[in-house]
Amino acid sequence: MSLYSEFFYSASFNGLFSDSQTIEYMLRFEAALAQAQAKEGLIPADASDIIKANCKAEFIDIEKLKAEVKLGGNAAIPLVQQLSKIVEKQNIEASKYIHLGATSQDVIDTATMLAVQAYTVKMMSKINELKDTLAQITTSHRNTLMIGRTLLQQARPITFGLKTATWLQSIEQCGDRISELPATTLFLQLGGAVGSGNQYLTNQVQAEVANHLGLKVSHSWNANRGGIATIASVYGILNQSLAKIAKDITLLMQTEVGEVFEGSAEGKGGSSAMPNKRNPVTCTAILANSTRIPHLVASILAAMPQEHERSAGMWQSEWEVLTELLKLTAGSLEKTLELIMGLEVDKDRMLQNLDLTHGLIFAENVSIALADSVGKLNAHELVKKACKSAIAQKKHLKMVLYEMDLKLPNLDLLFDAEKSTGNSAAIIDDILSKYQKLIQK
Amino acid sequence: MSLYSEFFYSASFNGLFSDSQTIEYMLRFEAALAQAQAKEGLIPADASDIIKANCKAEFIDIEKLKAEVKLGGNAAIPLVQQLSKIVEKQNIEASKYIHLGATSQDVIDTATMLAVQAYTVKMMSKINELKDTLAQITTSHRNTLMIGRTLLQQARPITFGLKTATWLQSIEQCGDRISELPATTLFLQLGGAVGSGNQYLTNQVQAEVANHLGLKVSHSWNANRGGIATIASVYGILNQSLAKIAKDITLLMQTEVGEVFEGSAEGKGGSSAMPNKRNPVTCTAILANSTRIPHLVASILAAMPQEHERSAGMWQSEWEVLTELLKLTAGSLEKTLELIMGLEVDKDRMLQNLDLTHGLIFAENVSIALADSVGKLNAHELVKKACKSAIAQKKHLKMVLYEMDLKLPNLDLLFDAEKSTGNSAAIIDDILSKYQKLIQK
Amino acid sequence: MSLYSEFFYSASFNGLFSDSQTIEYMLRFEAALAQAQAKEGLIPADASDIIKANCKAEFIDIEKLKAEVKLGGNAAIPLVQQLSKIVEKQNIEASKYIHLGATSQDVIDTATMLAVQAYTVKMMSKINELKDTLAQITTSHRNTLMIGRTLLQQARPITFGLKTATWLQSIEQCGDRISELPATTLFLQLGGAVGSGNQYLTNQVQAEVANHLGLKVSHSWNANRGGIATIASVYGILNQSLAKIAKDITLLMQTEVGEVFEGSAEGKGGSSAMPNKRNPVTCTAILANSTRIPHLVASILAAMPQEHERSAGMWQSEWEVLTELLKLTAGSLEKTLELIMGLEVDKDRMLQNLDLTHGLIFAENVSIALADSVGKLNAHELVKKACKSAIAQKKHLKMVLYEMDLKLPNLDLLFDAEKSTGNSAAIIDDILSKYQKLIQK
Amino acid sequence: MSLYSEFFYSASFNGLFSDSQTIEYMLRFEAALAQAQAKEGLIPADASDIIKANCKAEFIDIEKLKAEVKLGGNAAIPLVQQLSKIVEKQNIEASKYIHLGATSQDVIDTATMLAVQAYTVKMMSKINELKDTLAQITTSHRNTLMIGRTLLQQARPITFGLKTATWLQSIEQCGDRISELPATTLFLQLGGAVGSGNQYLTNQVQAEVANHLGLKVSHSWNANRGGIATIASVYGILNQSLAKIAKDITLLMQTEVGEVFEGSAEGKGGSSAMPNKRNPVTCTAILANSTRIPHLVASILAAMPQEHERSAGMWQSEWEVLTELLKLTAGSLEKTLELIMGLEVDKDRMLQNLDLTHGLIFAENVSIALADSVGKLNAHELVKKACKSAIAQKKHLKMVLYEMDLKLPNLDLLFDAEKSTGNSAAIIDDILSKYQKLIQK
Repeated sequence: MSLYSEFFYSASFNGLFSDSQTIEYMLRFEAALAQAQAKEGLIPADASDIIKANCKAEFIDIEKLKAEVKLGGNAAIPLVQQLSKIVEKQNIEASKYIHLGATSQDVIDTATMLAVQAYTVKMMSKINELKDTLAQITTSHRNTLMIGRTLLQQARPITFGLKTATWLQSIEQCGDRISELPATTLFLQLGGAVGSGNQYLTNQVQAEVANHLGLKVSHSWNANRGGIATIASVYGILNQSLAKIAKDITLLMQTEVGEVFEGSAEGKGGSSAMPNKRNPVTCTAILANSTRIPHLVASILAAMPQEHERSAGMWQSEWEVLTELLKLTAGSLEKTLELIMGLEVDKDRMLQNLDLTHGLIFAENVSIALADSVGKLNAHELVKKACKSAIAQKKHLKMVLYEMDLKLPNLDLLFDAEKSTGNSAAIIDDILSKYQKLIQK
Repeated sequence: MSLYSEFFYSASFNGLFSDSQTIEYMLRFEAALAQAQAKEGLIPADASDIIKANCKAEFIDIEKLKAEVKLGGNAAIPLVQQLSKIVEKQNIEASKYIHLGATSQDVIDTATMLAVQAYTVKMMSKINELKDTLAQITTSHRNTLMIGRTLLQQARPITFGLKTATWLQSIEQCGDRISELPATTLFLQLGGAVGSGNQYLTNQVQAEVANHLGLKVSHSWNANRGGIATIASVYGILNQSLAKIAKDITLLMQTEVGEVFEGSAEGKGGSSAMPNKRNPVTCTAILANSTRIPHLVASILAAMPQEHERSAGMWQSEWEVLTELLKLTAGSLEKTLELIMGLEVDKDRMLQNLDLTHGLIFAENVSIALADSVGKLNAHELVKKACKSAIAQKKHLKMVLYEMDLKLPNLDLLFDAEKSTGNSAAIIDDILSKYQKLIQK
Repeated sequence: MSLYSEFFYSASFNGLFSDSQTIEYMLRFEAALAQAQAKEGLIPADASDIIKANCKAEFIDIEKLKAEVKLGGNAAIPLVQQLSKIVEKQNIEASKYIHLGATSQDVIDTATMLAVQAYTVKMMSKINELKDTLAQITTSHRNTLMIGRTLLQQARPITFGLKTATWLQSIEQCGDRISELPATTLFLQLGGAVGSGNQYLTNQVQAEVANHLGLKVSHSWNANRGGIATIASVYGILNQSLAKIAKDITLLMQTEVGEVFEGSAEGKGGSSAMPNKRNPVTCTAILANSTRIPHLVASILAAMPQEHERSAGMWQSEWEVLTELLKLTAGSLEKTLELIMGLEVDKDRMLQNLDLTHGLIFAENVSIALADSVGKLNAHELVKKACKSAIAQKKHLKMVLYEMDLKLPNLDLLFDAEKSTGNSAAIIDDILSKYQKLIQK
Repeated sequence: MSLYSEFFYSASFNGLFSDSQTIEYMLRFEAALAQAQAKEGLIPADASDIIKANCKAEFIDIEKLKAEVKLGGNAAIPLVQQLSKIVEKQNIEASKYIHLGATSQDVIDTATMLAVQAYTVKMMSKINELKDTLAQITTSHRNTLMIGRTLLQQARPITFGLKTATWLQSIEQCGDRISELPATTLFLQLGGAVGSGNQYLTNQVQAEVANHLGLKVSHSWNANRGGIATIASVYGILNQSLAKIAKDITLLMQTEVGEVFEGSAEGKGGSSAMPNKRNPVTCTAILANSTRIPHLVASILAAMPQEHERSAGMWQSEWEVLTELLKLTAGSLEKTLELIMGLEVDKDRMLQNLDLTHGLIFAENVSIALADSVGKLNAHELVKKACKSAIAQKKHLKMVLYEMDLKLPNLDLLFDAEKSTGNSAAIIDDILSKYQKLIQK
């Protein structure tokens, strides 16, 4: 692992993709295969028991295995060889029944599915934590006034709760997509050399192995990588949804904006040159990940048109890329959770920033009110003129409008930020109530 | 459109994304908005009728509009201006109520959803045609023997029907993913300037407009682009699944393989230099598209971390990229359908190619049979030795094994291709029967 | 072209890649080939003259050609057919000598090189304009104080001229890379069917054609796409360098920062909802392009491992992608030039923003000064403590430090922004003087 | 490192990017800085000596450093802290002068440049080995007849030497691009907090440090990443050029083609299921890398529009991506060298494959010869008809043409493969002679 294994990644998720854990998943497949074949009377029960007992990652010489990957082109071949030799020492007869009828891709793809399965369980749990935290912050800031911004310009008021509610909603939608993955993508791979199956890979054996491993039965998907690509894109979309949150926070934390801050901690966010700095360090890691993730998704998609019954290169390119994508996304999720849990909100600064334009942010209010009498387009032009005038004369827009003597019944009301958040509160309540219902289920 | 508008694309799908059709969708939104606001008593019914009557793409000066996009940064601003002027000429009062409470992004995102909606209907229909055609070819070639290939090497026999059945299954899975898009992604966008809604964009108005346009109601998704990214990746995965078919056919059509051919047509597949050539022209277009699509998906994902309540750049980058992605994928689908409908299969050449290795492709059969007596690893080594020997002596593997005098009861059976396709027939029947059941629903 | 042909692109550059211009380039190749072959006595001079006289884009029926691309898989085959029929009507004998010994890829690749050649000339001219403009703005703002920002936090003072000088330098480096393209990548493609040449494609013919077209001679590069990939990446890097400028300006134009603005124009930068908005519209287009460009470069690189002597799909994928990449980059360049020429700088706001942190931005000055007596690490810790104290007590840092009674000889000097810009002026002068020297050459 | 550290990568290159080597480069920067500042009288010579003596990677607690990266957001901050404490124990005074005036990015970017510098030297050496090997194989196979293939169809004869000569030429061009990197991209980064320099980072100090480290002096390039992007794309293009070789070999090694083979080795290329398999394992690794590399280049380009004087996220995203890109490319290079050194060529099979089409591959010869009398287009049509006839009647094309009684003086000559390789030999000789001249320099 690189110097940045704790910066971009999550230490607790990294473990799911370690060398030894990968080998553990591969051996779990071999054990399940032998057990299923024994149950179906295809191999002796004794042999199956001995095989299973030896399917332990700690028995495997990983360095030797890595050196041999070069010869066969994948990790399954040297693994099966080592396992066979281990079993052989105990029982020559049993060693004959290892990996029977299966091919390397069966082991490797199934091990990947087991890793994604464990990963998905852990991720859903973290997503739920994040949703909780976002629901809390949304509740707290339902009425916290702030400016809404479009194209990085102040536009019109919203509440901070509306912003966090839309974050919550996007994460909920990500969670929904992820929760469908087990049913639609977590398939056993068990088709033998060319995916056609054989006498040792009967329907019953497939069903047993799948059941044992908690995976769905499927015909062989050797060169049909739609499932893998779906996993990659669904998690990719989660990562980018998390990055939208980090992007907003980084922008809100700018010195000149100063509305929201990453939680501080001893030694966190400093600079080696500038003692004054409080950098958005956690956001930085999430945003860095978001620069990389789209390209990892693309790499998986680019690897889809695989040749014939197994590819020479494209399949192999998936291995590290999918792992990297999942590890980075876990890093982003863990970091976003930290970020939201520690978030500091400066309500006063939010209010101050609402005053920054001397009323310009209420221009749309005035324009809509004026449209009743002069029509939308005329209103828009009139108010635009007033805005220019206000800027040029460095006056408050309300004053300029007052002087223009337009038919506007209640100017104060139009310049009241609290009255200018549209349906923010109703939207927040709706998102929160849907969230509450989901929780109660 | 480029010189290649009919090569990489589908003329019938291109129309869905033409300038005038895009404007048509935008105007459909404006008309629906006015009608909904009238129904809710927010604007006069007369005004709504006049607005609706003028929401016609043919009234719009597209060249003028394109020139003005540069000023406002999107197509909605000049469109609303033109529409307002058109209506104003008929009825000044009515022109006041156009686009009331809405923002540019509401129009543009909703128009995109309408395009994707129409596109999805057309695509599902073409996918069903492709599935039919694949089911037919699978039925015809259930028992057509051919070699299965892994890493571009002959591996062991399958049937051609098994290959096409796995194509069918991958397209079915793509169809399933696409059929979920309307419910999970085709959302109305209608939130006003910062997505908070306002007095003209009530819940009722949103529900009416959504209902009118056949879209799902949603809170504003201005800067939550998970839906757009899902559309991009689901169609991207379809394109790459189609490319897997084209990849296989291109490889099977190699002069040295010659098992399957693109249908011929007068003037098709020729070379400007070589009169002998019969090029896989249709496959070439599909494979070219597959080189491009992953990067278009990545571009959409890269554009996800959008700033605040509307992005300065990322949102805008989606417009042409999503369109391009959808148009290329439609091109690939149409071309794959043509490809499969015209496919020529040379069964004799498939049989000849099964003989090419002088029995080496049956090595796994022998190895599995031998494993009973000597164990899997020993069997593998023994047969490997026999294979080397056969190659060195240019003998048939059966002969070499015969001379080795191994405990193999029935050599002929082990070298029978028909007996070597594993569960191919059962897998095919299962895939076809599931397909039939789907059709009957 | 899409609704956005004038927003993301440059109308004047788009023309270089139009259908008719592409055909013009292809015909220029055919004319040059005939002339060279006539000069070498390989075909009659009369025939060459007649061929040349008919190599006019206006003679070609483009719609017919587009429909036929589908059959042959590229635009050269139907073009040569049309040209042959046109010539045949005038002189049957002459028509025999068209495209002699050449292959489709010769025409298409060479036409691409001619487009890139014309494009590069125009781009270099625009780059020079941009450099001039950047040099001017740098000269004007050599001493304009502003805050430098890292990780979107105020860091320490620079001058605005330093920022624009580094922009200038990056564009200069891009120009240097582009100026090498003609010598290293603009190669004639002329190798016949498999790139081996033939009796009609002698060394002399190749040299003549290359010379005539202003391209470099090269052995055939049918499946060696390093040159194309270099063109793509060099222009891709230019686009991203331009986007860095647009990114900075967008950030500086934020309502809360307000230091620099896109030039205003009637109707520019407005919002359909908000009359107050002044959006960074031009920046938005450039930033949108920058979201797309990396993926187009990747698409070209992904297409590099082309099969044998001509690819089935990868080569074809380059056509539209390279064009798109070049057109978008031209759009970005033209827009950046407009942006810089119209840039409005608010020096007062820059000064105000320097005061925003109540002296915190001078923390590094203090730290460096203090390091003399207490060491770098201690100084850093002491000043960090002072910063925290200043924030907590809402005091100016200078005041806090004064009260801490540290060994700092001249506090006022340490808090003088003009004295805190390091070597900014010297760096600017050096960059400008190198630029002046370049100009004078 | 993953299970695949020896499969996709080169063990000898991986070391250049290890944690300890990266720290070593960072410390080399700190030592050089102190020495330069001492030489310029900015810090005491004693202090500089002590600092230098302690700039040893083995003194650093890497695990501690990795844990602290999370706080500061980069590896430089905790490294400087550890170094300061180490020096402090020996000499408090000296510890004050560590990292004086510098910022984290100075250390990290310069360390990257040092890694790329060492990497480039090693890569150029391997590229030269590869060029030698390709020159040898080209010399050996100057006259080895084989079929040229376009769109995966047999086209017309070439020699195997022509194929390898074009490989050689593409690698030479890659070498040329790489050899320019030191002068155009390997720049010292040393600008302090915001790139403006300061009293401790004078021109003299910069020149000294650059000279000491073998890097070019440059103004600060904190947020001007054109150099990094150039490195990424130039090496990316090398990787894809290597993959073109692997692609060809994989296709030539297909069972049905069988012209060229990866060298065999005990245990290499086997399958866990099929004892008969001889898989293109080495090619597979290279092709897998080529699926990934374009996306890593794109990631670097996507990270270019960095904010202000240092980015929050984009800069950080470069770190692991650039390393991965360089490591994979080194893996591809090493593997391609192995591949070419061990390549087995089956000349007989090449000759057999020339006969596979019963003369169709000579169709262009006939067409060109016939063009003299009937014109190119007619000739093309006539010969196309003859080809169809030959296929339909399963006759040799020569026989069909003979029966058509066309004006063709010497049919045998037209069907002579040796006479049909165009200028192959001359092209080969030219490429080899240029290569020889380069060597002799």
